[in-house]
Amino acid sequence: MIKARVTVTLKNGVLDPQGKAIEGALTGLGFNGLEGVRQGKVFDLEINGDNKTAAGKDIEAMCEKLLANTVIEDYSIEIL
Amino acid sequence: MIKARVTVTLKNGVLDPQGKAIEGALTGLGFNGLEGVRQGKVFDLEINGDNKTAAGKDIEAMCEKLLANTVIEDYSIEIL
Repeated sequence: MIKARVTVTLKNGVLDPQGKAIEGALTGLGFNGLEGVRQGKVFDLEINGDNKTAAGKDIEAMCEKLLANTVIEDYSIEIL
Repeated sequence: MIKARVTVTLKNGVLDPQGKAIEGALTGLGFNGLEGVRQGKVFDLEINGDNKTAAGKDIEAMCEKLLANTVIEDYSIEIL
């Protein structure tokens, strides 16, 4: 079985109101010195089989089709 | 400036209906062989200063207080 982690983050320049809200909440809790917070998503996948190359290609297709909105998001794939 | 990435994932054994839905959607798209999908969150933080030890402690406190629900979630901190 192959385990992989896909991390999806907003592209630079895309507004992240959720991140801004978290930044505001952390500052309100007394954490000073925050320059920026951006939130993303992580997907932990478990895939049958042993072929890491094939799995990597499958995961890339999953990202393009469903996991990431490639207009505004970047993704990175890590096979564990 | 210090950059850090916090990854928040559900603890083992905690149900993840969102992950299940994504797994179903991927299977519906023709991706077979998926054993499991779990979704988590990632926070990219930028913090003023150069003291990585102090920043690490601050970030741990942020996780405990706001970023993670430690009853059902684990977090990991990576100083970049």
